[in-house]
Amino acid sequence: MATLVSPPNFCAKEDAEALRKSVKGWGTNEKAIISILGHRNAGQRKEIRAAYEQLYQEDLLKPLESELSGDFEKAVYRWTLDPADRDAVLANVAIKKSTDVYNVIIEISCIHSPEELLAVRRAYQLRYKHSVEEDLAAHTTGDIRKLLVALVTAYRYDGHEINAKLANSEADILHDAIKDKAFNHEEIIRILSTRSKTQLMATFNKYRDDQGISISKNLLEEGANDFQKALHTAIRCLNDPKKYFEKVLRNAIKRVGTDEDALTRVIVTRAERDLRDIKEVYYKKNSVPLEQAVAKDTSGDYKAFLLTLLGKED
Amino acid sequence: MATLVSPPNFCAKEDAEALRKSVKGWGTNEKAIISILGHRNAGQRKEIRAAYEQLYQEDLLKPLESELSGDFEKAVYRWTLDPADRDAVLANVAIKKSTDVYNVIIEISCIHSPEELLAVRRAYQLRYKHSVEEDLAAHTTGDIRKLLVALVTAYRYDGHEINAKLANSEADILHDAIKDKAFNHEEIIRILSTRSKTQLMATFNKYRDDQGISISKNLLEEGANDFQKALHTAIRCLNDPKKYFEKVLRNAIKRVGTDEDALTRVIVTRAERDLRDIKEVYYKKNSVPLEQAVAKDTSGDYKAFLLTLLGKED
Repeated sequence: MATLVSPPNFCAKEDAEALRKSVKGWGTNEKAIISILGHRNAGQRKEIRAAYEQLYQEDLLKPLESELSGDFEKAVYRWTLDPADRDAVLANVAIKKSTDVYNVIIEISCIHSPEELLAVRRAYQLRYKHSVEEDLAAHTTGDIRKLLVALVTAYRYDGHEINAKLANSEADILHDAIKDKAFNHEEIIRILSTRSKTQLMATFNKYRDDQGISISKNLLEEGANDFQKALHTAIRCLNDPKKYFEKVLRNAIKRVGTDEDALTRVIVTRAERDLRDIKEVYYKKNSVPLEQAVAKDTSGDYKAFLLTLLGKED
Repeated sequence: MATLVSPPNFCAKEDAEALRKSVKGWGTNEKAIISILGHRNAGQRKEIRAAYEQLYQEDLLKPLESELSGDFEKAVYRWTLDPADRDAVLANVAIKKSTDVYNVIIEISCIHSPEELLAVRRAYQLRYKHSVEEDLAAHTTGDIRKLLVALVTAYRYDGHEINAKLANSEADILHDAIKDKAFNHEEIIRILSTRSKTQLMATFNKYRDDQGISISKNLLEEGANDFQKALHTAIRCLNDPKKYFEKVLRNAIKRVGTDEDALTRVIVTRAERDLRDIKEVYYKKNSVPLEQAVAKDTSGDYKAFLLTLLGKED
C-alpha cells in the first residue's frame, strides 16, 4: 500500500498556475510546492508538467531546479519525474559517480517487475542515448560487472509456476558455491539473473529448509567483500523488497549525518507503491514510527516534503 | 526488399475455407496450401489463423502438422507462425537439441532490432513459461554461455549517434584481445553485447582502417574454436546480415545432403524482409541464381514451397 495522499479530482491547469506563482513570485513559496506536488500521483504530475509546458513553454523541472536547493530540490525534482525516467536518472547518477551503484542498480533490476525494468531501460536510452547496460559495463569491472550487467539485462519470466525439482537442484548448486566460497561462481549469477522470482523464492526456501539457515545469512557468515555484499543485496531485493527497504531506511537514518540520498530515494520511489507496508516493517523492527525517525533526522522544507510523501496529514 | 508476393486484397475467411478443404478432403492438396499460404504476409496469415479457429474451433497449425510431413511440413508450419513466435520456436529447438544453437541465437540476437528481439523474448515466455536466457544459460556452459546470454539479453540503444573517440579506443581493445588470443576476454563480450549497432559499425571500420584487415577475418586467422566461431558469427550478423545469410545459404546448399534446417530457416525468416537483397548477394558470389540452386537441391512440395517464398511466379 502507498502512503501518498492524492485527490481523486484535480485540475492540472490550476496546479500549473499555482506552481508558476510559487516559483516565479517574490521569493519561492516552498509550502505551496509541497502541498501541490506532494499530493499528486505519477499520472497527475505528468498532466501538470504537460499543462505547465503548454502555458509557459518551459519544463516545470527547470524552475524547480533553479529556485529550490539542496536535499529539498533533489527530492522534489526526482519526485516530479516520471517513475521510469526517475529510475533512469538514479541509475545514471549511481553509475557515473560510482556511489551506491550496487544498491541502485540492484534495486531497479531485482525489485521491479520485468516490464517495469524494461521501461527504465527505455527511459534511460531516451535520456542518455546509451543503454544502461552499456554505461554500467563501461564503468564497472570484474565479477561485480558480470553480476550487475546480468541483473539489469534480465527480462525474467513473470509467471507463477514452480519447478520443485529445479528449486531443489539449484538450491544445492548455490549451497555448494557458497560452501566452497566460490561466490563469483558463474552458476550463482546464472540462477539469480535468469530464473523467475517465484522460482527463486522456491529455491531460497529449499535452501533454508535444507541448510537450516537462509541463503542471505549464510552468505554474510562467510565474510563480506563487495561482491558478496552485492549478491546479498540482490537476494534480499528478490526475496523481500519491503524488508530490504526497511533496512536501507534504518541505515540511512542511523548513520551519523544521515544518508539523505538513500532516504530520499526510498521515500520518493516507494511513496506511490508500498511505503505504507515498509513503514509497518520499520515500526516492528525499531519500535519508532518512521515519520518520527525521519522528522528527527531532517529539517525545513526537506523534512516537510518527506513527511508529506510519508502520508502526514497537513 | 522482400521476395514474398502477397495480394493487397484477400479474404481470410475464404482462405480458411480453402485451407480446410485442402487438409480435410480426400488426400491433402499441397498445391493449394502452397498457393495460399505461400502468398500471404504475416498479418494476413494471422487473420487466416484467426478465421480458421473461429470457423472450425481448431488451430490451423494442427492439421498442417498432422497432414503434411518432412521438410515441407516444417517449412509450412514455421512460415505460418507469427514471426516472433517462430523465432521463439527456432531458439527453443536450437537450445534443446544443442544443434545450431550458436547460429540461431546469434541471428536472433544480433540481426533483429532491439524491439524485435524483445518481441521474441516475450513470445518465448508466453510459449515455454521460461525466459529464453534462462533456458539458454541452463543448456550451455563457459565462455559460449557468457557470450550468448549477453547477446540475447541485450536491449541496445537504437539511435544513430557515433562516438568516434569511443570507436577508436574500443577498436584498440578488440585488437589487443585478438592479438593476445584472449578471445574470451570480457571486454570483447561487453563491447559486442552492449554497444549500439551504429557504434559497433564505426568500431569495426576503425579496426579495419587501423589494422588493414577486418576484425572478422582477423579473428579467423587466429584459428577457430567454437567460441571464436561464435564471435565471428556475431560480428558478421551485426555488421552485414545479408552477406551473412548468403553464406549460410551457400553452406546449406553446398553441403553433401543439403542442410534443410538452415535452408528453411533463412528462406522462411527472410522472405518478408530482405530475401531479395540476399538473392542478389548470392548471385554475385555464386554466379547462379539462388532459385536455381535451391531447385537443384530440393524436390517435391518442399521445393515448390521454397521457390514460392523466393518469389517465383506461379
